Amino acid sequence: MLTMQDALRRLSDYWTSKGCLTWQPFNTEVGAGTMNPATVLRVLGPEPWDVAYVEPSVRPDDSRYGENPNRLQTHTQFQVILKPEPGDPQELYLGSLEALGIDLSKHDVRFVEDNWQQPAIGAWGLGWEVWLDGMEITQFTYFQQVGGQNLDPIPVELTYGVERILMAQQGVTHFKDIVYAIAADGRPVTYGEAFGQQEYEMSRYYLDDADVEANRRLYETYVGEATRMVAERLPVPAHSYILKSSHAFNVLDARGAISTTERAKAFATMRRLMRDTAALWIERREELGFPLKREEAAVEAPVVDAPEVAHDAQPQTLALEIGVEELPPHVVPQTVDAVREALTAKLAATRLTHGSITVEGTPRRIVAVVEDVAASEPDAEQLRKGPKWSAAFDAEGNPSKALQGFMRGQGVTADQVVKAEIGGNEHAAVKATLEGRGVLEVVGGIVAEVVSGLRAEKNMRWNDADLSFSRAIRWLVVLWGDVVVPVRVSGLTSGRTTYLQRPVAGEESGRRADGALVGHLDVASAGELLSTIEAGAITLSSAERRAQVEERATALAESVGCTVDLEGESALVDEITNLVEDPHGVLGHFDERYLGLPDKILTTVMRKHQRYLPVYRDGKLAAHFVTMANGLCDDETVRAGNESVIRARYEDALFFWNSDLETKQADEFVPGLDKLTFEERLGSVGVRARRIADVAEKLADRVGLVGHERATLTRAGQLAKFDLATQMVVEMSSLAGFIAREYAVRMGETQAVADALFEMEQPHTSADPVPASTPGALLALGDRFDLLAAMFALGAKPTGSSDPFGLRRAALGVVRILREAAGTPLETLTIREGLTDAVARLAEQGIDVAPDAVDSALEFTIGRFAQLLRDEGTSADLVAAILPAADTPGYAARLLNELTGAQDDQRLRDLVATLVRITRILPAEALPQAGADVAVDESKLTEPAEVSLRDAVASVPAGTADGSVAGLLDATAPVVAAAARFFDDILVNAEDPEVRAARQGLLASVLALAPAGVDWKSLDVALG
Amino acid sequence: MLTMQDALRRLSDYWTSKGCLTWQPFNTEVGAGTMNPATVLRVLGPEPWDVAYVEPSVRPDDSRYGENPNRLQTHTQFQVILKPEPGDPQELYLGSLEALGIDLSKHDVRFVEDNWQQPAIGAWGLGWEVWLDGMEITQFTYFQQVGGQNLDPIPVELTYGVERILMAQQGVTHFKDIVYAIAADGRPVTYGEAFGQQEYEMSRYYLDDADVEANRRLYETYVGEATRMVAERLPVPAHSYILKSSHAFNVLDARGAISTTERAKAFATMRRLMRDTAALWIERREELGFPLKREEAAVEAPVVDAPEVAHDAQPQTLALEIGVEELPPHVVPQTVDAVREALTAKLAATRLTHGSITVEGTPRRIVAVVEDVAASEPDAEQLRKGPKWSAAFDAEGNPSKALQGFMRGQGVTADQVVKAEIGGNEHAAVKATLEGRGVLEVVGGIVAEVVSGLRAEKNMRWNDADLSFSRAIRWLVVLWGDVVVPVRVSGLTSGRTTYLQRPVAGEESGRRADGALVGHLDVASAGELLSTIEAGAITLSSAERRAQVEERATALAESVGCTVDLEGESALVDEITNLVEDPHGVLGHFDERYLGLPDKILTTVMRKHQRYLPVYRDGKLAAHFVTMANGLCDDETVRAGNESVIRARYEDALFFWNSDLETKQADEFVPGLDKLTFEERLGSVGVRARRIADVAEKLADRVGLVGHERATLTRAGQLAKFDLATQMVVEMSSLAGFIAREYAVRMGETQAVADALFEMEQPHTSADPVPASTPGALLALGDRFDLLAAMFALGAKPTGSSDPFGLRRAALGVVRILREAAGTPLETLTIREGLTDAVARLAEQGIDVAPDAVDSALEFTIGRFAQLLRDEGTSADLVAAILPAADTPGYAARLLNELTGAQDDQRLRDLVATLVRITRILPAEALPQAGADVAVDESKLTEPAEVSLRDAVASVPAGTADGSVAGLLDATAPVVAAAARFFDDILVNAEDPEVRAARQGLLASVLALAPAGVDWKSLDVALG
Repeated sequence: MLTMQDALRRLSDYWTSKGCLTWQPFNTEVGAGTMNPATVLRVLGPEPWDVAYVEPSVRPDDSRYGENPNRLQTHTQFQVILKPEPGDPQELYLGSLEALGIDLSKHDVRFVEDNWQQPAIGAWGLGWEVWLDGMEITQFTYFQQVGGQNLDPIPVELTYGVERILMAQQGVTHFKDIVYAIAADGRPVTYGEAFGQQEYEMSRYYLDDADVEANRRLYETYVGEATRMVAERLPVPAHSYILKSSHAFNVLDARGAISTTERAKAFATMRRLMRDTAALWIERREELGFPLKREEAAVEAPVVDAPEVAHDAQPQTLALEIGVEELPPHVVPQTVDAVREALTAKLAATRLTHGSITVEGTPRRIVAVVEDVAASEPDAEQLRKGPKWSAAFDAEGNPSKALQGFMRGQGVTADQVVKAEIGGNEHAAVKATLEGRGVLEVVGGIVAEVVSGLRAEKNMRWNDADLSFSRAIRWLVVLWGDVVVPVRVSGLTSGRTTYLQRPVAGEESGRRADGALVGHLDVASAGELLSTIEAGAITLSSAERRAQVEERATALAESVGCTVDLEGESALVDEITNLVEDPHGVLGHFDERYLGLPDKILTTVMRKHQRYLPVYRDGKLAAHFVTMANGLCDDETVRAGNESVIRARYEDALFFWNSDLETKQADEFVPGLDKLTFEERLGSVGVRARRIADVAEKLADRVGLVGHERATLTRAGQLAKFDLATQMVVEMSSLAGFIAREYAVRMGETQAVADALFEMEQPHTSADPVPASTPGALLALGDRFDLLAAMFALGAKPTGSSDPFGLRRAALGVVRILREAAGTPLETLTIREGLTDAVARLAEQGIDVAPDAVDSALEFTIGRFAQLLRDEGTSADLVAAILPAADTPGYAARLLNELTGAQDDQRLRDLVATLVRITRILPAEALPQAGADVAVDESKLTEPAEVSLRDAVASVPAGTADGSVAGLLDATAPVVAAAARFFDDILVNAEDPEVRAARQGLLASVLALAPAGVDWKSLDVALG
Repeated sequence: MLTMQDALRRLSDYWTSKGCLTWQPFNTEVGAGTMNPATVLRVLGPEPWDVAYVEPSVRPDDSRYGENPNRLQTHTQFQVILKPEPGDPQELYLGSLEALGIDLSKHDVRFVEDNWQQPAIGAWGLGWEVWLDGMEITQFTYFQQVGGQNLDPIPVELTYGVERILMAQQGVTHFKDIVYAIAADGRPVTYGEAFGQQEYEMSRYYLDDADVEANRRLYETYVGEATRMVAERLPVPAHSYILKSSHAFNVLDARGAISTTERAKAFATMRRLMRDTAALWIERREELGFPLKREEAAVEAPVVDAPEVAHDAQPQTLALEIGVEELPPHVVPQTVDAVREALTAKLAATRLTHGSITVEGTPRRIVAVVEDVAASEPDAEQLRKGPKWSAAFDAEGNPSKALQGFMRGQGVTADQVVKAEIGGNEHAAVKATLEGRGVLEVVGGIVAEVVSGLRAEKNMRWNDADLSFSRAIRWLVVLWGDVVVPVRVSGLTSGRTTYLQRPVAGEESGRRADGALVGHLDVASAGELLSTIEAGAITLSSAERRAQVEERATALAESVGCTVDLEGESALVDEITNLVEDPHGVLGHFDERYLGLPDKILTTVMRKHQRYLPVYRDGKLAAHFVTMANGLCDDETVRAGNESVIRARYEDALFFWNSDLETKQADEFVPGLDKLTFEERLGSVGVRARRIADVAEKLADRVGLVGHERATLTRAGQLAKFDLATQMVVEMSSLAGFIAREYAVRMGETQAVADALFEMEQPHTSADPVPASTPGALLALGDRFDLLAAMFALGAKPTGSSDPFGLRRAALGVVRILREAAGTPLETLTIREGLTDAVARLAEQGIDVAPDAVDSALEFTIGRFAQLLRDEGTSADLVAAILPAADTPGYAARLLNELTGAQDDQRLRDLVATLVRITRILPAEALPQAGADVAVDESKLTEPAEVSLRDAVASVPAGTADGSVAGLLDATAPVVAAAARFFDDILVNAEDPEVRAARQGLLASVLALAPAGVDWKSLDVALG
């Protein structure tokens, strides 16, 4: 059996055999191996640094008295830093798993996107969590920034979660049962025996017994010393004190003694100290001459053979493979599209003829095949423009100075000069032959551009000077027929070697036992790239992979008489499809007793955490799941691993469920919200929840909500977001709202209150329904108005792809709720009202509100509304037509609906034409003001056309403007007719100012008959 | 090359292969691996615990900015705990050296006595420092007590000093040059590159930049939390906070911010907290059921064969070998003597006949051989005592009841009863035969008693329930002829297996390449034990070993034309003799430039630290030394190792010398004395130095010292003990005084002041001279009076062998200085005066002085004086005679001298007889009072004998009592004669009280003629 101490030793031996220094755990409490100076300081600056060490990591908040099977106040990390990243860190990492005795031919190892950031130390990076049979065993990150410093070279950080690896390997379900070592007498010493008392006692200290005032004093003192050490230019002791202050803070936090203000201040302090310390470290190392920096060996760039290709050679297939480390699933199709578009466009910009372009991709490769690519571009004739013909010759017909200069430049004689019309003018010109470039030159240039132009939303740097992409690009196959197209992009050189599924320990590149090819293989010609990849048991086509996933999942479910919900899980299937290159389904089972938990908890764990497909029997959730492993593995091993993962997760969930429900009153969770940070300037989640409730009450006043609905709102407001403080939601935030409802009814709240708490989180997505009840809708609005108002109050609008607080979703939520509120008391609410109420509440809290907050937020929200309508297929002009009404989305939606319904009605067109004409004629000051009566001096209206129009207007029933469009058309038809006559007969702009005013007033009264909030000119355009 | 990280890994691998848990360094700063809970807590209580770990150990006071080649603020310990000690920890340890690649067949590994204690945590143990070619590489301790708790079972602690092992193995002279690891590209990474910046910056923090107030706050807070955690019964966090407080204290100390009071208080606090925490840990473990405790396997005691020996078998040689782990050198001869005496006495108490008894010993074995030990005791006849003969028969001559009872008890009939004189009375008795016991029974019992009775001054327990000795006893050979004498003493069983020099890696027990036997071998018979040991190249006889040492050292010195000073180094030769079993001399050399340092420094390093014999050329110290390795080794290897050790030590000394002498004024060292603890209740060394100066000034006043001597005293007093604050004396405390003199002259003090500073430490030993100058003598007295007064003020008198403050030596010093002060101004000083002055000074400091302090200290000192005189050969009666004068040792010594000279003079005998007669006659109230005139009413003295005695008394010149004894005898001869007549003629006790008073007065005036301070009765007895 692999004991924990064996595992640590093997990891240490493995990494030192790869050239890593062995380091020691830090001699003050750290929350993670990252915080050891061997990582957080040494990754800074240009010096190389390869190091491996054990780090017992202390997280006071994870204290559980040693009772929770998976959670410890001190857990053991094994930490590796490779700086610069060595070019093959994944392969090196996999070697370390084999060193642990993990047979990679049996297990399913996957690299699942996980982007690490620690704002408190100004650090972030991209990478993965590594899954072993569904369990996260390692964090694998390409560090990009630490202490606010951009890193160069880029280090790779590997953090192994040692306890969980050992629990899996030893098949135990509680950390205390891990065999830590074998004693001299052969008796196993368990983790619990070795560390159990420490777990209990330190949990006691952190959760119950630490003296708050003492730890506050420690915190302040540490910060003081760290600050002084920065001033003294001593980054080493400064860093040590930052760690100490961080630990003291964590102790206070675990004791529940940190207020929102303190938390915000502490984070800011830590960030500042860490930034200063990082900068100082680099300075000090530079002063020392960067002692560990190596002389750069002048790396001889490999010579790329540029073979001769005859210009008249036969067209050949072009094959391109961009080999990458595992891309995040959503990046795969984006990249496939991007490569296809770029190739197509760039080829089109050349004169190279070619056939069809196919691009497919997996997480590890994007492959493009272009058929029949010519050996060269044809030559082309080109006119080179000289001086204007009129200025090309002097009076004697001899070439002018200008033409002489042109000829010299072109190296031609006068007889080669022709007259040509260029840009509408006659010019002297010469004909030149543009020689067609060879395929290698053309394609080489295009591939270089395509590769260097690859981008995703989040990009990273790695050990390559110039490239930047979602993940590291590791190889490049570019073949035209059997010729390698020479390409060099930064550090990357094209070749014919492809990398298939990774070989396992002792396996050579070549044919595997099951016949599949593995490892790196040379591809003879472009035509063989696809078949080689296929022979490597890799399904290149996403559509095919998707079909395999569906088919295999279905078959596995059927094998136990069940089904999978492929339609409902479409997004998940998409994700799974792009997590693997070779979908290999494995059916797992879990204990029936977990089915006692609500389905949503179980399926959330499966989907969100594990990417398992839930399995149903007769429409009810069954105790099975399907996981899609990648490539060759042993089903039994993978099944057992995944089953133990889900058991642990469900065990956790059950623990949280039971533990949360020991609390008898939902109210008891509410104070916990004050411990959760929302945004440092905006206070805790607790503060925000109270703001939401206040805004909802204000809106309820506006719509006159009373009675039991009002009571429901008030009670739900008191409990707003209480579930964020439950263990279950702390663990699984996507269950927010759902858990509130589940717990609320179990804690004696009414169903209405429970529903309101659930609904206030709706809609989660664009497909999600809006709140069904008025209290739920008001709270949901309060939530979103507060968020929008708060962020715009701080001037924090979303930019580009960055929308960390989800303002777009919030705005859409507001719009959807109000739009779908037709027929409810809420339909008259305006966005401005909601934002105004929310801003007022923020201002009351002393938050400094940007003066344009309401206007900006409103504009932003209406912009989202417009986008929504466009996305739903409404034409831009129609959208523009109702935009003035968009502040009241219910109204705007109705209008839009009716106008769309009436768009073929000639009466509408006539009415609109009339209204547009009137708006053109009337000066701005004469236009009717919303809500104000139109004053018309009728005594001045004496012409028959005037009178008839006046009478027609008077005959329209009051309130028509607010009624339906159909009613409007009925009622205004006589007005439209009278207006036509009026325009024929009457000069509006009469010389007599009183007459003019009366006529303008009459026309304004026509305008006032029409509903407000419509841009008639846009509608006119829309109606065409 | 063995890199440091390889070394750590190999140690870790080795010890885990022996069943140790791998542990991690503690996550707070610790001063030593001992303080990690894996040691300091886990050694407590009954649970077994084998553990090995690396511990970077932080000692702020050792900060040197990374400049000193051997001193670091953080050095690396490798720590091993074996609990219970496994029975062969030395062999296991040697295996770990081999695991490090150290070829034990080449190196000299020695176990040199070193007893560890850390009063601050209530801990102590006995053991060794392990020397590798003269360098201390490991601390090896059998822990006896930790946290004030007696340990059971006893753990062994091994602490490897990793940097120094690596410096030696890699042959580098600065820690920064250690190759820490080899990087991935094959380039070595040095220790300096890896840790240099940390050394510099943390040194800056500890020595210069740490904020004193901040660290004081930390200290107080930590102590507060530790105290609270003890109260909460949580030993784990309590211990953590004890460590934190200890580190904060060390930081403050390194910053020079700890006052004496604070230090004393902090130590007391720490001791208390550690004691409470230790007790609590055991309690808590007991509550948990001692989870790691194993079921005791019922160990089957090996059956000891008890062969049949015929009672009339031939006498045989008896051989006994007690095998031990390396005894401290001085324990070897003591144990040899003890075993010889015990064997002799115990054999004498039996009837077993035997020949000569020889006992010899080495550090690893005590061997006794007894010739011609009979196979059994002869039978013996015994009389058993019955009632008195007179009460044995009734009137009829029949046995009385008493006799009947006796006969019944003895099972005899009346005819077996005889009459016998027992104890001077006639008794009824019966004769019985006492059967002789066999040799095995007799010898077995004796050996068991001898072994279990072995004791030294300091004894320890190990893995044996009942034995207690200086070091562990590991084997027992007991042979009578070829028969093993069955002995079981606690866990130890006799056998015939002896253990010779330890085999090295791969070597089997048996004959070594050079022909010597190694390892464990069975001895066929008693007669072969000595020859077997001899064949093992072990010299059993101390005298022979001593001769070998002398001979080999001399030969080696001669080989370079030099000599060794065997006479001067007699004590060192004794020590060396008992450090080795097989003295193997190696000559080493050091750089001539070190000869620029004073010889005393160089020889002190050689003698005290290294046990090297200094080598002289033409009477001057040469750049050579002789070390005596133990047994087989490679001369070159051992020489190179020892040379590098002495180079490092001399480099250190040179560094200290130069660094100390950068200080320009001796005064600048004085404040440093306040940082040195003397005794917590008595203040710092600085405080004590000022007391000494004050007492010396007081004594100078008493003797009227003025002029330049007074000035010298005052200046020297200001500098008293300043050298204790120099780096040199901190390192080599035996140089105290010497360094004061050396530095003082170099810092511009007068030679007289420098000499006084040197002399104030004299006499160091009984052979050492007393101070030559009066200022030196006064300071030396001040020093010793202060020490005696202080300790008796606290009631801390020496008991038994415990005299930690050296009070016996101090008392002897006082006596010797004063005794040898005859003819100087000091000769009139009394011990009482000195003690009174010293106590007064203590009382001024607010120290609570025991009321009998002066009397007790005086009695103690005079007791030492008496013992000194007895040791010098003075008879007890003579000593008793002058004891009343002992308070003034100079006077007492003169008296004693003169009385001894006159002891054959009849006049002295007559005078003494007269004086004794007078003292017998006079009632106590009539005896003359010292210093008071004797009042005699001469008008009442009318009888001739009275008159003649009065005239004789009057004729004695004034001051005779204070003069020489010869003068006294001359002057008092007429008085003695007149007194004889007076006694004949006069009745002293006349009835007339006035007459009686006059006569008594007359006799008293005779007494007053004699010198004070003599016990005439004792003198009378002495003169016999």
